[in-house]
Amino acid sequence: MAAMNTPSPAVPDPSPDLLQRAAAVRRSAMALGQCSDQERRAAVEAMAAALEAHRPAILAANQADLDAAAAGLAPALVARLKLDPAKLDGAIAGVRQVAALADPLGRRQLHTELDQGLVLERVTVPLGVVGVIFEARPDAVMQIASLAIRSGNGTLLKGGREASCSCAAIVEALQAGLASSVVAPQALELLTSREESLGLLKLDGLVDLIIPRGSNELVRFIQDHTRIPVLGHADGICHLYVDAAADGDLALRVALDAKTQYPAACNAIETLLVHSAVAPSFLPAATAAFAAAGVELRGDAAAMALGVPHAASEDDWGREYGDLILAVKVVDSLEEALEHIRQYGSRHTDAICTRDAEVAERFLAAVDSAGVFLNCSTRFADGFRYGFGAEVGISTQTLPPRGPVGLEGLVTYRYRLRGEGHIAADYASGQRRFSHASLPL
Amino acid sequence: MAAMNTPSPAVPDPSPDLLQRAAAVRRSAMALGQCSDQERRAAVEAMAAALEAHRPAILAANQADLDAAAAGLAPALVARLKLDPAKLDGAIAGVRQVAALADPLGRRQLHTELDQGLVLERVTVPLGVVGVIFEARPDAVMQIASLAIRSGNGTLLKGGREASCSCAAIVEALQAGLASSVVAPQALELLTSREESLGLLKLDGLVDLIIPRGSNELVRFIQDHTRIPVLGHADGICHLYVDAAADGDLALRVALDAKTQYPAACNAIETLLVHSAVAPSFLPAATAAFAAAGVELRGDAAAMALGVPHAASEDDWGREYGDLILAVKVVDSLEEALEHIRQYGSRHTDAICTRDAEVAERFLAAVDSAGVFLNCSTRFADGFRYGFGAEVGISTQTLPPRGPVGLEGLVTYRYRLRGEGHIAADYASGQRRFSHASLPL
Repeated sequence: MAAMNTPSPAVPDPSPDLLQRAAAVRRSAMALGQCSDQERRAAVEAMAAALEAHRPAILAANQADLDAAAAGLAPALVARLKLDPAKLDGAIAGVRQVAALADPLGRRQLHTELDQGLVLERVTVPLGVVGVIFEARPDAVMQIASLAIRSGNGTLLKGGREASCSCAAIVEALQAGLASSVVAPQALELLTSREESLGLLKLDGLVDLIIPRGSNELVRFIQDHTRIPVLGHADGICHLYVDAAADGDLALRVALDAKTQYPAACNAIETLLVHSAVAPSFLPAATAAFAAAGVELRGDAAAMALGVPHAASEDDWGREYGDLILAVKVVDSLEEALEHIRQYGSRHTDAICTRDAEVAERFLAAVDSAGVFLNCSTRFADGFRYGFGAEVGISTQTLPPRGPVGLEGLVTYRYRLRGEGHIAADYASGQRRFSHASLPL
Repeated sequence: MAAMNTPSPAVPDPSPDLLQRAAAVRRSAMALGQCSDQERRAAVEAMAAALEAHRPAILAANQADLDAAAAGLAPALVARLKLDPAKLDGAIAGVRQVAALADPLGRRQLHTELDQGLVLERVTVPLGVVGVIFEARPDAVMQIASLAIRSGNGTLLKGGREASCSCAAIVEALQAGLASSVVAPQALELLTSREESLGLLKLDGLVDLIIPRGSNELVRFIQDHTRIPVLGHADGICHLYVDAAADGDLALRVALDAKTQYPAACNAIETLLVHSAVAPSFLPAATAAFAAAGVELRGDAAAMALGVPHAASEDDWGREYGDLILAVKVVDSLEEALEHIRQYGSRHTDAICTRDAEVAERFLAAVDSAGVFLNCSTRFADGFRYGFGAEVGISTQTLPPRGPVGLEGLVTYRYRLRGEGHIAADYASGQRRFSHASLPL
């Protein structure tokens, strides 16, 4: 809240040029939103074909970005920035997969006869225009742009400075693809400067949703500086609770996967809670296994007494390491584990390992996170793994959409009411009565 | 946006006392959220019974508010503030109706086998804690409190100063009702001072949704000063477009209802758009009918030439009169009508009268409002009329929930994944594959 009450000279008003371009995207999006399923699908396929045609240009542009970055970037960032032929092919295949997804638009969610001849329906429609801000991952441009067009939305894209040549080449290809379809290329617009990226945050009324894809700091800055809804999450502080009734081998296998399978992911665990009844048998084995996997364990006093080599400080609880480090705490009850998660969790994904069905159901009912898992790795919290085909982002907000969000995060709905001259006064007077009869969807 | 970048000394940090009370509501809400359908239903019924038992005290408190207000209040405000025996009985009956509503919790929205023994479900759960700020309508306290308890949510209530005695007496009754149920009375908390009301806006992490019920100014102030999601709408600028192919009698009947049936409502029309092809026949008759109904018409030059008595200025478009005043504009095409609505509408509810099915479908597809109506009054945009049983509020936002929002506005969902030791590495390595088989809901 502090940020909202602080002057932010860092966020200037959008320039007239940006306002004009955003309005053009919005106009194109309104036409796009009325295209048929087949037309939008064909447009995304045309985007994939154009990416293939522009392959050499895209790879060259990416090499230029890599050359420019050369000395300055951390290896992890270079890895994200790099678009080799295999990665580009994968991204193009991903665009084709998005084309093949079922149409999220025009789905009737509600259908009610309010009275004879007065029929209400609720149907899915596009959001309108989506603003996407991401750091150095050129493949994300292709993914998000294809999801947006598939679901009938215009898009303002802003990539990281390090990926500027790659993004320009990719968007040029995507627009060339759209030009060969019925969708206007203006439905996709690339923002290039920091000023434009900040101006985007103030495009209320022109942009309906902002999706940040990047560091916690990026997401938090955006959440603090825009009134436009933001789909995303700053923190991913996931917990695994090993219950008194846990199968020790199963729990260790799950814990190792949840920490080490991809430690930088938001759905990797950061804290392991172990019930004191099993800690004496579980923790020595776990300590050895985590050490072998290169994971640094930081424990409370009870955990250290059972072999955890490093001491955890208060700062370690609720911390997102994003690395091969894991905090470990011994708890005396399910309630203590729940209270710890309540206090330090980020409502992303939390898991329990137990064979006790009653304890399992209590945990699944009580933990207030987007994902609550039993006897499996938190790493499954992902749109692809959930079967959504593609992921727009992961939200840790309370309100829907939350958790991994597929195409449904890019659509909203509208009520349509068709009558034959019906007026409210007739119902207020009691002359007519509502039937409220459900009709088939 | 300006407000976000301006220091707001008007919004102080919550006091330690408020933080403590809000935390108590949250704790009570977590227990409430795990109550069964029957327990929550019984709690709401106990609230209704307690309201009946406290009837004399509530009516006396309301009289005290009325006496205190006496000279100072506008008649419309006194009418909203006044709680006579009939109105109180109606409100208590409303609480009983809420008890009878179908349980919004525990509904399975998705059920997928990700792999053998690894099953995902998405189930509805309460939001947590709802903050409700309303002006002088004591009946709203009973309605919102019962909806919140029915859906498993804790509630912080803040009524207008004018209704302070009434609200205190009502909340005392509601808490007494809860005390005779399994739900803790602390799940409902009444805020009494302006400082607390402002502090509520900063209870991020303790309050999940704020519902303002009051003037446009109240709603806008809240939207500008909180990071907590707000369910509501500032403006209701609804249009009716009388197409070239409209049935004139039907259109006039609908227009009169949409303007006059309750002009202060947000779903009443503020602007009438009339196609130039029918304006010469429609407008003279409409002018006479609206004059007879006491409505002041303000038209553009073309409308005035056809009998509309007053001139509309640029300020009249997009203005919410909330009164017996209607702006009238003659347009030359459906496109001009759509463009006018796009420019001046508030995305609440807009209607068309036409016999041309193609024009109707184009209007229903193109207008980007929460409600788009054909040949019926905009006054039907209401949760009760839509058949939702009760209304939490009406939202004009793009993202769901939008339009009239019933109990579903007070629930969210959670993903539960149950496995048998499943780890992500097995799928990354290709050793196992996802089945993503839909299971019955």
